[in-house]
Amino acid sequence: MIVVMRHKATDDEIEAVVLRLEKIGFQIHLSRGVERTIIGAIGDKISLGDVSLEAMPSVERVVPILQPYKLASRTFQEEDTVIRVGGLEIGGDTIHMIAGPCAVESREQLMEAASIARSCGVTMLRGGAFKPRTSPYSFQGLEEEGLRLLAEAREATGLLIVTEVMDAKTLPLVAEYADILQIGARNMQNFFLLREVAKVDKPVVLKRGPSATIEEWLMAAEYIMVGGNYNVILCERGIRSFESYTRNTLDLTAVPVVKHLSHLPVIVDPSHAIGKWRYIPAMSMAAIAAGADGLMIEMHPNPAEALCDGQQSLTPNNFINVMSDLKKIAGVMGRKMP
Amino acid sequence: MIVVMRHKATDDEIEAVVLRLEKIGFQIHLSRGVERTIIGAIGDKISLGDVSLEAMPSVERVVPILQPYKLASRTFQEEDTVIRVGGLEIGGDTIHMIAGPCAVESREQLMEAASIARSCGVTMLRGGAFKPRTSPYSFQGLEEEGLRLLAEAREATGLLIVTEVMDAKTLPLVAEYADILQIGARNMQNFFLLREVAKVDKPVVLKRGPSATIEEWLMAAEYIMVGGNYNVILCERGIRSFESYTRNTLDLTAVPVVKHLSHLPVIVDPSHAIGKWRYIPAMSMAAIAAGADGLMIEMHPNPAEALCDGQQSLTPNNFINVMSDLKKIAGVMGRKMP
Amino acid sequence: MIVVMRHKATDDEIEAVVLRLEKIGFQIHLSRGVERTIIGAIGDKISLGDVSLEAMPSVERVVPILQPYKLASRTFQEEDTVIRVGGLEIGGDTIHMIAGPCAVESREQLMEAASIARSCGVTMLRGGAFKPRTSPYSFQGLEEEGLRLLAEAREATGLLIVTEVMDAKTLPLVAEYADILQIGARNMQNFFLLREVAKVDKPVVLKRGPSATIEEWLMAAEYIMVGGNYNVILCERGIRSFESYTRNTLDLTAVPVVKHLSHLPVIVDPSHAIGKWRYIPAMSMAAIAAGADGLMIEMHPNPAEALCDGQQSLTPNNFINVMSDLKKIAGVMGRKMP
Amino acid sequence: MIVVMRHKATDDEIEAVVLRLEKIGFQIHLSRGVERTIIGAIGDKISLGDVSLEAMPSVERVVPILQPYKLASRTFQEEDTVIRVGGLEIGGDTIHMIAGPCAVESREQLMEAASIARSCGVTMLRGGAFKPRTSPYSFQGLEEEGLRLLAEAREATGLLIVTEVMDAKTLPLVAEYADILQIGARNMQNFFLLREVAKVDKPVVLKRGPSATIEEWLMAAEYIMVGGNYNVILCERGIRSFESYTRNTLDLTAVPVVKHLSHLPVIVDPSHAIGKWRYIPAMSMAAIAAGADGLMIEMHPNPAEALCDGQQSLTPNNFINVMSDLKKIAGVMGRKMP
Repeated sequence: MIVVMRHKATDDEIEAVVLRLEKIGFQIHLSRGVERTIIGAIGDKISLGDVSLEAMPSVERVVPILQPYKLASRTFQEEDTVIRVGGLEIGGDTIHMIAGPCAVESREQLMEAASIARSCGVTMLRGGAFKPRTSPYSFQGLEEEGLRLLAEAREATGLLIVTEVMDAKTLPLVAEYADILQIGARNMQNFFLLREVAKVDKPVVLKRGPSATIEEWLMAAEYIMVGGNYNVILCERGIRSFESYTRNTLDLTAVPVVKHLSHLPVIVDPSHAIGKWRYIPAMSMAAIAAGADGLMIEMHPNPAEALCDGQQSLTPNNFINVMSDLKKIAGVMGRKMP
Repeated sequence: MIVVMRHKATDDEIEAVVLRLEKIGFQIHLSRGVERTIIGAIGDKISLGDVSLEAMPSVERVVPILQPYKLASRTFQEEDTVIRVGGLEIGGDTIHMIAGPCAVESREQLMEAASIARSCGVTMLRGGAFKPRTSPYSFQGLEEEGLRLLAEAREATGLLIVTEVMDAKTLPLVAEYADILQIGARNMQNFFLLREVAKVDKPVVLKRGPSATIEEWLMAAEYIMVGGNYNVILCERGIRSFESYTRNTLDLTAVPVVKHLSHLPVIVDPSHAIGKWRYIPAMSMAAIAAGADGLMIEMHPNPAEALCDGQQSLTPNNFINVMSDLKKIAGVMGRKMP
Repeated sequence: MIVVMRHKATDDEIEAVVLRLEKIGFQIHLSRGVERTIIGAIGDKISLGDVSLEAMPSVERVVPILQPYKLASRTFQEEDTVIRVGGLEIGGDTIHMIAGPCAVESREQLMEAASIARSCGVTMLRGGAFKPRTSPYSFQGLEEEGLRLLAEAREATGLLIVTEVMDAKTLPLVAEYADILQIGARNMQNFFLLREVAKVDKPVVLKRGPSATIEEWLMAAEYIMVGGNYNVILCERGIRSFESYTRNTLDLTAVPVVKHLSHLPVIVDPSHAIGKWRYIPAMSMAAIAAGADGLMIEMHPNPAEALCDGQQSLTPNNFINVMSDLKKIAGVMGRKMP
Repeated sequence: MIVVMRHKATDDEIEAVVLRLEKIGFQIHLSRGVERTIIGAIGDKISLGDVSLEAMPSVERVVPILQPYKLASRTFQEEDTVIRVGGLEIGGDTIHMIAGPCAVESREQLMEAASIARSCGVTMLRGGAFKPRTSPYSFQGLEEEGLRLLAEAREATGLLIVTEVMDAKTLPLVAEYADILQIGARNMQNFFLLREVAKVDKPVVLKRGPSATIEEWLMAAEYIMVGGNYNVILCERGIRSFESYTRNTLDLTAVPVVKHLSHLPVIVDPSHAIGKWRYIPAMSMAAIAAGADGLMIEMHPNPAEALCDGQQSLTPNNFINVMSDLKKIAGVMGRKMP
């Protein structure tokens, strides 16, 4: 950590900061420049969230040097994490697809989606049973009935089930049915929930919050890992920017960045990021070219009848075409697709 | 609602949309322009979240006409909501101040803060017992012990207690001690939690999420109101923008905007928005001048020793000065301060 | 255009808006709903920038229906624009690469960059002679001497020259040397400059401004086209968001969006968007997979000695590897690379 | 400047950076921590824009310590700059108002606006003769005729004239008529134009770009100051964020921040920031309470007939009321209004 003192900091003010840092256990390097004195603090303490140095007199700025996350970092583990679940390896050579409707609406709808997905190489089925909706007047999901239908679809197709858990209270129920738990974007910093899923022995898809920096996203993963669950799959799903033509701005650069900073697998959800089905095929291709380990895509047997987010769902035909194109890109990237 | 059809939409495609809308119960006005056909749908259905019109062929855009929130709107209730709690009226003529440390750290710290606050006209004490922290390695709050200290401070000073509830599980505990519940910015769209606080008979301070539009914020209030709790106090606390000199960008314009769109009281938390104590006095003044009904300000007996956010806490001296200046502005605005 | 009137608009207020619109030449459809009256205005007037309807009493909102750009839209021209310059076709089957250093620094530097670029299939050389720099204390470019060196490099390699023009005053000079003019991101809405390049018979690379919406970007293209120059190449180069790990946020979704809305060619500049060389190869691949017609990439014989933006420049070796990978992706996309 | 080396940087890589920095003239402090080696570089060189350290092997991050602007900083000049022009002092005890229509449209319109402004204590008249418009199909201003009308209004009322200069070519013409030159938000980083206005002996209102950080804004001021013109008035006018209810997000906190970092006067333009007249009065009050030295407000004799931005213009009546309220706030702030 580096502490930059103000232009006219007095010797006493500098001394006070030095003493404070030494007390916490840092070794100090002092460097007096022409215009600023800089205090370097050396030690292995990761978090300084509890030390309010910037409130001390004449402290201009505190610059952290170490990354604030540890378990999620490449420094902690150099090689890629490969998550093994239900016979699949996520984060390895094979690119895996999660597909299905936004929300589970009925047995018929889900079975049809699952069967189409299965037929073109998808390995995991998505579908919300508990739906976080901006409006209290919108469809909120079939809840337990939705979970049961998902389990039925797994039975019928062999697809693994990925579904969202919204709250600690319903976690045991969701965990009973799901193969992989999903933490939604709005819950990325629901720290109670993160601590609870950390105790469950299932992989977690952790969506990036729409206003979360990459660092905050990795810190959220750290919450889950520090609690004992190392099987975290990061999912980029768009961030908020001023551009409103698309629902959010898909930050694809986050894929190679996270791959560089962390050993965790990264997938991309272009459907929620963009919000318009027309652009999902192109951006699915781009995501794989950027190095993603998989995709989560919304597909609905009949998007115009969807109870949720139909405008961003691919029709079965469009989906089949995308899957075929994706296989070619995967080949160029030296990766396999089932 | 207005549906704009694409340039070359066929008669069949237009007819399909019309039929769909009529089936839901809308009355239809069709208007064929030179380049676009526009379908106006008239009816009192507020939410169309469940109708995926944009997935229908040749639909270019759907433009909602009515506000998606109802109970929170001025259309529903013209006059200002005044919330009565513990002898105070929030949202009326009197401007109320919530002050105190970011986190409850110890009896000594809290009592000192409470007594300073009390002495200069503050009516409500803040202090986090459960702290949402970006890092799992940071101080997470004293939990129940913190709540007990808050109750003790109320006993000693008469100040009402405002404290954050982070999760449905701990809600009964927090509600036992708090006079006013606070929903933190990161939980603004934690819909499970919103539904739960809706059932509690205590006012709720609802902080705006850092990436929430004003409309989404009002929709979050709607969740609480539709569940039966009409005592919602909206709190602007900064939004995420590209400017990183301040922690967030305080969107003060949200104050008159919300006052225009809604009847609910609005307060401002400049401390979390800005993150640097130096600018809190000026922006507190500005908030009252913009029409806020109150402020939530962090003040700590010794910010440099704070376990949380010391850099944004005012010292007692600075706080006393701000309070004295605020009273003058309140006078100009035709409002009282205790 | 749709005008939404406020809840309690009077008949006189509605009538006033109707009369105003009829006077301008619109045909009117009035539709009185339960809660709002809506006025549909039909006509072929594109711009309403000069009609301040929202300042009329009880007007709640004005919703434009037609796109505000005309010449740049697919409605005006359905088929893709292919720009022919110096034997190349930009926007056709072939993907073209623009590469070279951020700034022209010396004959040696430029010749080396040009010769490496040439050897691996690049067709256009970039290099700034006039450099827009955030700081007045930074290197501002070699100016005319830089232009002369670019011409020399063209002579030696056959590469076309793409270079930035910053101002109407220096436009004649730059146009004398350049094959393709570049309008930098900060000048995207320098309307004087747009009007001037519209008069020059050279293609223009129009970079998207860091805070420009896609619509504003197309409006800037419209300025050039309406002035007579139809050879506009749009270049996505990142937008400002709260994420600060990368210099800007590369909005790759803009590629398929612009391809859908407009007939103009679109290229991508990952170097300026991201600002860190390490992530340029992955995002170059992604850009081609998203459907871009070409790339503009910074490459420097020795990035660590660069006078400008060395941190985002590829070394010759890294660049050669990227070019080889890009050819494979181009193949999958059904496109050629020279 | 601090250079942070990567985790596994070799001694040779560290040595190379040290040699490079010493060669430029820095004195070096090396500090080897447990996980990172940090190189402190001490010297008075402000700009490192020309040194591409981050392109050197194993350099993780470069952290600048000194502010990149010098003349604009409080370090260079401690006391506030007071700009004297036409008998006024801007940046002193007196708060000055700039008011008038967005664009000069006709003699009648301008004279009426000027006379109302004059009557309630405004000291400067605004009005665009050259208008930067997003659409080439919108009204672009009366150009020289507009300037002549402004001069006439000055003659008639004694108000000083503030008007925008869009381009170096028209600068001599504009400077002939204007008392104060305005650089528009879109031109904040038009460095050619900044260098040209630096040579003119007139004060400059420098609007903040919609995507400019406070630091970039001060760097733009530095361009003007380094060219010899120290009379720069900074004008906050909103930044781009995801919130689209208002045109831009007024970043009022920039006022106390700039006052802390710089000695230059700061004014606020709520009209362009917000884009809706209804919220201008509240935010004008807030701006003065935040410490602004003045305001620039749009007022039009008949906003509904305005050729430009009528929706954000105050009517004469609303304007007169605001002026009266502002005087009360100014009093509380210990400042005068004419």
